[in-house]
Amino acid sequence: MSLLSSLYPGALMVVGASADPTKRGFQSVRALLRDGFQGAIYPINPKLTELQGLVCYPDIQSVPGQPELALICTPAISLPDVLQQCGLKGVQTAIVLASGFAESGSEGEALQQQSLAVAQRYGVRLIGPNTSGVFNTHARMNLVGFSDLHAGPLGILSQSGNMALSLVTEGSQQLHSGFSSYIGVGNAADLGFHDYLDYFAADQGTGALVAYLEGLTDGRAFLQAARRFTARKPLVLYKSGKSESGQKAARSHTGALAGSYQVARGVMRQAGVVLVEQPDHLLPVAEALATQPLPQGRRIAILADGGGHATIAADALDALGLTLAELSPTTQDGLKALLPRGAAVSNPVDVAGGTDSDPLNFARCAELLLQDPGVDQLLLVGLFGGYALRFDVSLADAERLTAVQLAELARMASKPLLVHSLYALSRPKPLQQLVEQGIPVYAGIDAAVAALKALADYAAYRQRGEQDDLLTGQGEASLRAARLLTGVRQQGRTALLEPEARQLLGTFEVPLPEACWLQTPDELQQLDGQWLEQPLAMKVVSRDVLHKSDAGGVKLNLLGLAALQRGWQQIEQQVLSHQPEARLEGMLLAPMASAPGTEVIIGVTHDSQYGHLLMFGLGGIFVEVLKDVVFRALPLSRADAWDMLAGIQSARVLEGVRGQPPVDKQALVELLLKVSALVVAHPEIEELDLNPVRCHREGYTLLDARVLLATAASGAMSAAGAEATGMAELADGVQRLH
Amino acid sequence: MSLLSSLYPGALMVVGASADPTKRGFQSVRALLRDGFQGAIYPINPKLTELQGLVCYPDIQSVPGQPELALICTPAISLPDVLQQCGLKGVQTAIVLASGFAESGSEGEALQQQSLAVAQRYGVRLIGPNTSGVFNTHARMNLVGFSDLHAGPLGILSQSGNMALSLVTEGSQQLHSGFSSYIGVGNAADLGFHDYLDYFAADQGTGALVAYLEGLTDGRAFLQAARRFTARKPLVLYKSGKSESGQKAARSHTGALAGSYQVARGVMRQAGVVLVEQPDHLLPVAEALATQPLPQGRRIAILADGGGHATIAADALDALGLTLAELSPTTQDGLKALLPRGAAVSNPVDVAGGTDSDPLNFARCAELLLQDPGVDQLLLVGLFGGYALRFDVSLADAERLTAVQLAELARMASKPLLVHSLYALSRPKPLQQLVEQGIPVYAGIDAAVAALKALADYAAYRQRGEQDDLLTGQGEASLRAARLLTGVRQQGRTALLEPEARQLLGTFEVPLPEACWLQTPDELQQLDGQWLEQPLAMKVVSRDVLHKSDAGGVKLNLLGLAALQRGWQQIEQQVLSHQPEARLEGMLLAPMASAPGTEVIIGVTHDSQYGHLLMFGLGGIFVEVLKDVVFRALPLSRADAWDMLAGIQSARVLEGVRGQPPVDKQALVELLLKVSALVVAHPEIEELDLNPVRCHREGYTLLDARVLLATAASGAMSAAGAEATGMAELADGVQRLH
Repeated sequence: MSLLSSLYPGALMVVGASADPTKRGFQSVRALLRDGFQGAIYPINPKLTELQGLVCYPDIQSVPGQPELALICTPAISLPDVLQQCGLKGVQTAIVLASGFAESGSEGEALQQQSLAVAQRYGVRLIGPNTSGVFNTHARMNLVGFSDLHAGPLGILSQSGNMALSLVTEGSQQLHSGFSSYIGVGNAADLGFHDYLDYFAADQGTGALVAYLEGLTDGRAFLQAARRFTARKPLVLYKSGKSESGQKAARSHTGALAGSYQVARGVMRQAGVVLVEQPDHLLPVAEALATQPLPQGRRIAILADGGGHATIAADALDALGLTLAELSPTTQDGLKALLPRGAAVSNPVDVAGGTDSDPLNFARCAELLLQDPGVDQLLLVGLFGGYALRFDVSLADAERLTAVQLAELARMASKPLLVHSLYALSRPKPLQQLVEQGIPVYAGIDAAVAALKALADYAAYRQRGEQDDLLTGQGEASLRAARLLTGVRQQGRTALLEPEARQLLGTFEVPLPEACWLQTPDELQQLDGQWLEQPLAMKVVSRDVLHKSDAGGVKLNLLGLAALQRGWQQIEQQVLSHQPEARLEGMLLAPMASAPGTEVIIGVTHDSQYGHLLMFGLGGIFVEVLKDVVFRALPLSRADAWDMLAGIQSARVLEGVRGQPPVDKQALVELLLKVSALVVAHPEIEELDLNPVRCHREGYTLLDARVLLATAASGAMSAAGAEATGMAELADGVQRLH
Repeated sequence: MSLLSSLYPGALMVVGASADPTKRGFQSVRALLRDGFQGAIYPINPKLTELQGLVCYPDIQSVPGQPELALICTPAISLPDVLQQCGLKGVQTAIVLASGFAESGSEGEALQQQSLAVAQRYGVRLIGPNTSGVFNTHARMNLVGFSDLHAGPLGILSQSGNMALSLVTEGSQQLHSGFSSYIGVGNAADLGFHDYLDYFAADQGTGALVAYLEGLTDGRAFLQAARRFTARKPLVLYKSGKSESGQKAARSHTGALAGSYQVARGVMRQAGVVLVEQPDHLLPVAEALATQPLPQGRRIAILADGGGHATIAADALDALGLTLAELSPTTQDGLKALLPRGAAVSNPVDVAGGTDSDPLNFARCAELLLQDPGVDQLLLVGLFGGYALRFDVSLADAERLTAVQLAELARMASKPLLVHSLYALSRPKPLQQLVEQGIPVYAGIDAAVAALKALADYAAYRQRGEQDDLLTGQGEASLRAARLLTGVRQQGRTALLEPEARQLLGTFEVPLPEACWLQTPDELQQLDGQWLEQPLAMKVVSRDVLHKSDAGGVKLNLLGLAALQRGWQQIEQQVLSHQPEARLEGMLLAPMASAPGTEVIIGVTHDSQYGHLLMFGLGGIFVEVLKDVVFRALPLSRADAWDMLAGIQSARVLEGVRGQPPVDKQALVELLLKVSALVVAHPEIEELDLNPVRCHREGYTLLDARVLLATAASGAMSAAGAEATGMAELADGVQRLH
């Protein structure tokens, strides 16, 4: 992979090297020399012959070696020419700092397109333009001008140079294990988020990645790369532009389009990404994920040397849905033997001064907790690291020894150990030692608990593992569906009539309630007795009526022939007075759904960033007022479907509330998977609404179904669809994919 | 006030002074001398004649002066004797450090009681025992052993010594304006939270108070003191123990919903307390409240020197319900003139590099924003303070000058100005200057935005002002209610029958739907035509049936005499098969509530900490599944009532959703106030449920009412109730409702 070799280059050029210390063309050369970059450095500037002791070359072609990487510090306007020279020289990757491209208006956009065309012609890949730069501490290559870097496992990928600066500064002010590479995404004219994810996945120096994201141009590619990435390493992401106001800022910043945050939350979780809700949790969470083993579960033990911190930590656990581990009697007895009478030996454990004069006792307590099979992770909260500062300087040695023991105990137990200390920002020696031994140290309890949760969530995602196949379309069903969709299109329609929508779902074996479609009122007389002896719902069928209820096109509880005839007449009148030109294509009759149940809504929409999305939520007030819905990108896996059911805030309603029976979750999961399969096989379906689906203790009843197709111009046509319209050889080629 | 004079003492004793540097009896004397305490210091220890250059006295009576304050470092067992000596010496206040009292079991509890009795006999007030101590920087008196204190406006009141240590350490690691006094609450044997609130309110050195609270013994006294305090100064509080499960055995719906944290959130807001949800927001929020003027509203301008931070800040504003100010055309034109082309001049303002080489331009932009009448508060985000570090050291002078100008501009505009800087923890000179000039500086954007919100909330609370009277009971109504309640009690009941509950509400002029109570089925025949021509609801009346629906005691939609007779019979059968021994006292008939509306629930419960609480929420799924309810302590003010309606998460539902009309909020406010007045006048009402109340576009319909009284032993009886005891013609009074 050329990006990987480019960012561990044997040689690099600085195009637009400078003798002015305020210029990037000077600073980058200085940083490379200072940090001991091992490769060759070629400064390029026609006006200089020497720079900081290095030979300076007048132009790219004069460079004697074969640089893989070029840092381009020249103004925007020079870029097409510089890239051509780079290409001729065999450069693989160019980092373009200049701004004045797509982010600055149509002229810049044209210049960016022109530069990209040159780059592609000569096989040069671009980072940027308008990027703050790149560093790779493991290659001792700092091309961004951040100071105070130290090498470690955390990669940074950011759409904002300032956010990267924030992270690096935060790292330098606190104890942490250090950074590997940083890439500033910039305008992403060529290489984009998904390429960089592949780089960080392959980079052996990176253990976990921290990403700051404002918006995506190709969300699907991102999700696929994220899925590949998270199968190997943790990815911790903060997504800005959550709010409408936030999105406004994002647009004026990079011109990126931030999608709905609710969508992002769903699809990122699906791809195994750890999404943090506060930017200052990025580093703390990534620190834990980069250094700790994956836990078996969500049961946390808290070991505190003060009651206040213990209580706060327990509150924070509860707020994030983690569990306070139940300690075994053995553990509790062991703790009792170690601690004074006033100590709390059930979780959270409060040593009640039992370590103030003997820090090693803290390690003994930690050992008992780590050995308890009911404990998945251990959190220490309080003063540790500051005993010598707070109590007596004579404790310093014992405290340092305790730090070493704590790290060793965690390693032996193969369980995560996280340490909160109110002295974290003072960086006393024992805390430094913990971090050096791979134990994260936190100044805030909330950040520490967010890290515990991220460990549990990511571990659960990884446990889902490879058996979690993505389901795709089914051949036979697909053919029947394709015929139906082609028929609709041939009539120049994009909206399916409700009977057609039901039929379409039927091809994918979605169980449908009995229904019949009559084209004229005369046909009512041919209904057999069974239809006349139960109350029926009657709905107008019309290609011109999208919202049947609003148009007066629905009547409920019609019993017997007379009522049906009267109903037909009334619907016709109402619809035509609402839409005089509507073409009526009869009525759909269905028995009234009498079984009680909980109403849910299932929908598909096509998102400009992430492609087809599946939505699930509870019906009625939950969706309309509370917007309590979850999204996933298609295709859906079985685990995704279960995760959707668990993911709504009011998930408890599915268990049965207010006298309703619990819903048949298994059946609902099958329905979600069938909808996914249908839409994956027929991507010309642009929108689909099953609203409501009434869920029973066993099975469910679809009460309404709507399907809209993309216009021929905008939508991709499915393979089977193509076949049915007569393009047989095209279909042949694609059909085998399913 | 003796506590105030005690904590600015002219002389103090250290009882149990020590020559051992690890002991508090040594450390406190050292700190007093080091800090330049101005009063007399009298160490007491029979074994020493001199300590750190001071005369040491053998016992308390030998002390020549008249110390107001004693720091008691001796062991628990000595306390009664020491307090007696203190009392004889005329000491006003004693700080007792020793543990081993009520927190350690029954023996300690007895010792605490004994000590308290001595203290009370001799008129000595106690801080503690089991307190970590006290400091007052303005008196140069540090009796707690925290280091790195500097004097400033923030008081600390804490139930955990570790949390106080956390706050002080956090302060010393960051830029902040300094601390005034700290009081460790300890066991609160004598002085408690409410006394300390009065101290901090009176203390001129304290501008705002930070409090850490775990639990309260007297919540009502706390709320009253908090109300007095917040009328003068801001109080920022973190309440731990959020995850405690709700009250155990509550008989009513409202009681069951009164989980402790939800209640705390409601009553603290009512008392003007700023409750923070993360402990690490305590100091940042208090810092803003202590230093900034109160803003006119919630419209925030953001000035950023980088897009990423601007976006994050806008997201954070939105998440907390603040508004991005709309900038006037004048402001936008002014910014355009100051900034480069790529800058965003609508809010959030991004200078797009327009200040990198000219920090003073930042002040010019800030000036325009502060002058905009549409801006209530200004937040700066990004790198400010670090320009010299990040860009060029030559910018240092200009950056310092900018800091001075920014502070001056904010002063002139009388608007809050808060500054976020990613260099905050590095404490560069310009940021130090900002803090010295009274401008808070934050390392995290979330903390800064939490502070903006706290300023807006507290300002709104203060604007409610004194005209917001608390409403109490009404004399005439109260007398009628008292007769009714006494009658119920005389029958040995604590549960009111529904007709009685309705009548009770009627005495306080709550409008009630027409209803009638029939004692035998024969009375059905006497109903006049109006009652037989509309569908009625029939509900069993029985002192033994608490949950009428569950017992089969409710029938709906009964039309005509025959249906009513059948209904009566069925209800009787069902109730008796459910509860064979139930005494039936007839049926309540009411017309079916036909008007559409939104159902709400209003309830009262008696809380062991805070006394009577009023609850408000939406009915049905909102209360049962989402627990979307708010609480306030009684009595309720009109502003409180409006605040309750606005305070539920789904407040939007009150505006009308899913085709429902908006509810009559004015009427609902009156109802809340009437319920408050009723319960305040009759505190023997222990629980009350109006569930549901159906709210219409105009007015509302009470569909059910339940009232439970305290048992005679547990509940206080109202004065009027006691007066009315003996009045007997109650059955008469309740028989025919309206």
